[in-house]
Amino acid sequence: MKKRVGLVGFGGMGKQHIKRIKESKHVAITGVFDSDSEKDYSTISSKIRKYQSLADLLNDPTIDIILIATPNDTHKTIAIQALQSGKHVISEKPVTLNTQELKEILAAAERYGKKFTVHQNRRWDENFLITKKLLEEKKLGELLYVENRVQGSRGIPKDWRRNKEQGGGMLLDWGVHLIDRILFLFPNQKIVHLHATLNYFLAHEVDDGFKIELVFDSSKKAYLEVGTTNFIELPEWYTVGSIGTAVIEDFELNGNYVTLTGELAKEAVPVETGAGLTKTMAPRNDNSIETFPLPYVKSNVVEFYDNFALTIDGKAEPFIKAEELLRLTTIIDACFDSSRRNETIHFPNGL
Amino acid sequence: MKKRVGLVGFGGMGKQHIKRIKESKHVAITGVFDSDSEKDYSTISSKIRKYQSLADLLNDPTIDIILIATPNDTHKTIAIQALQSGKHVISEKPVTLNTQELKEILAAAERYGKKFTVHQNRRWDENFLITKKLLEEKKLGELLYVENRVQGSRGIPKDWRRNKEQGGGMLLDWGVHLIDRILFLFPNQKIVHLHATLNYFLAHEVDDGFKIELVFDSSKKAYLEVGTTNFIELPEWYTVGSIGTAVIEDFELNGNYVTLTGELAKEAVPVETGAGLTKTMAPRNDNSIETFPLPYVKSNVVEFYDNFALTIDGKAEPFIKAEELLRLTTIIDACFDSSRRNETIHFPNGL
Repeated sequence: MKKRVGLVGFGGMGKQHIKRIKESKHVAITGVFDSDSEKDYSTISSKIRKYQSLADLLNDPTIDIILIATPNDTHKTIAIQALQSGKHVISEKPVTLNTQELKEILAAAERYGKKFTVHQNRRWDENFLITKKLLEEKKLGELLYVENRVQGSRGIPKDWRRNKEQGGGMLLDWGVHLIDRILFLFPNQKIVHLHATLNYFLAHEVDDGFKIELVFDSSKKAYLEVGTTNFIELPEWYTVGSIGTAVIEDFELNGNYVTLTGELAKEAVPVETGAGLTKTMAPRNDNSIETFPLPYVKSNVVEFYDNFALTIDGKAEPFIKAEELLRLTTIIDACFDSSRRNETIHFPNGL
Repeated sequence: MKKRVGLVGFGGMGKQHIKRIKESKHVAITGVFDSDSEKDYSTISSKIRKYQSLADLLNDPTIDIILIATPNDTHKTIAIQALQSGKHVISEKPVTLNTQELKEILAAAERYGKKFTVHQNRRWDENFLITKKLLEEKKLGELLYVENRVQGSRGIPKDWRRNKEQGGGMLLDWGVHLIDRILFLFPNQKIVHLHATLNYFLAHEVDDGFKIELVFDSSKKAYLEVGTTNFIELPEWYTVGSIGTAVIEDFELNGNYVTLTGELAKEAVPVETGAGLTKTMAPRNDNSIETFPLPYVKSNVVEFYDNFALTIDGKAEPFIKAEELLRLTTIIDACFDSSRRNETIHFPNGL
């Protein structure tokens, strides 16, 4: 029998969960509550019960899982209430506004013996998975550094996303995804230095973009970037390995990779570029490189819900682990700290 | 009458100077010396005298200007000797390996009453000048940040460029150009924070690339980057302003710029991208933006030599000023320091 899910929050993401969960073999949304009593539920099935209060939903013994898709500042309170009511919990990201709040949730999950996870759905983005595959298959040799950027030109939407107290801003929005998944490209490596610069170009109280540098104990590096004032986008993924480079332009997976296929035919001959001469930047025009199409990867984010149901039954390891979430919020906290103080943050024992 | 130039160093850049100076109305190369007595001078005019020693060249009273195009660690000694011999001096970049050495040269120029300048030729690169023009004409609104990168895949050439003592490495090579000219995009602004990460991917004793962040007292930012292990290149120039973004792909000046031409027709509608939904990154599909070709800019680096000749005669202000050179070497010193210590460097009074 499918686990019964009660959705809290019928906004953009709530509706997305309803749509996605229809494809799940292991969970079904059977109830919904939104703090706005005027919400129009006409687009969803009449079989989904609409609750008048959060308490009503939490007190319904037929509900197994509470799925929280409310503004970011409310996740903690709702999660702890739900755990206390004997429900398993899935929270939207960012799980909380800082590590301390996450620890409170994890302690509650422990205390009440219930499972807790966070919807880190962009681990299922195909452009991320293609990059991961290229690295795992050593198509680019050894990884040297990877850049992941997400850019748009619309600024920050005029809603809670502009509000600091409610957990707005780009670091807590896209930043949470970018940091979470980049760590999988650096297996068994720890962060030793971190430098973050948040941007406030639009003069909101929250950041409208950022650049982050993560330096691992392997000396490999990750560069993460979000911008909301970018009328032309740079490629989303740019990965540099010892014998090759990969580019994925966008979500449509345009891109390719280029690798060294032979020795350089000869030492570089300086070339004129602009007002100067360069030997170092002379192009490779000797057939020593080859261009390849990106590998094919197909992913399905519905696995996320199914895995959580199986985890509850002790039939699977969770995809999104507590220690991963704690590491993620610790990095986010450090990014805010780095930017506020304009300092590089060090983790002498590795993070 | 043209000023007579004695060239020291008949390598790649020396030959380039000979070629360029042929176009000058104010200077002519009349002599050359190279420490390698086996050099083949058959490609240059027999009218250019070949000296057997540096002393012979410096002692020739017909020579007005010494042009130094030798490895980086030798600039200081040759420059001071030349100034002492009563010659004006042009040095290749990087002028010296640190600020202290530059101060010694400037003190010698002062003492002997001779002019000194540095061949910061990439101020004449057209892709730089196009970016400068776009900003001066406010085509992108107010500048928010600018990125300038130069990437290649050949590693560091097998010569003095790999040698630390001789001033090898990418920060002292391309870095000197990128830092020097980026400052002109931030007029009347001072650097308050600087963060640099040098890369040693190729395990030479010198850096094979770097990333630098400069934060100005205006909160505007510059990002500079060089890589020699990049088989696919990102655009050389990426400039973000308050109402537009410009891209210049390469030295061939491919690129364009996009600006806001009207209000957004409506609030963003969330779009599905990858395994998620995004409101912030929804594309502009409402004709609120327009794409323009890059403006035309034509430059001629021969102006550099002509300006120096006019400066000697008191007929022009120097294009490359002593205080600019001191600021540049101070920034370079700080970049080495930032990377070595993995720290952000602060300039509380602005640099």
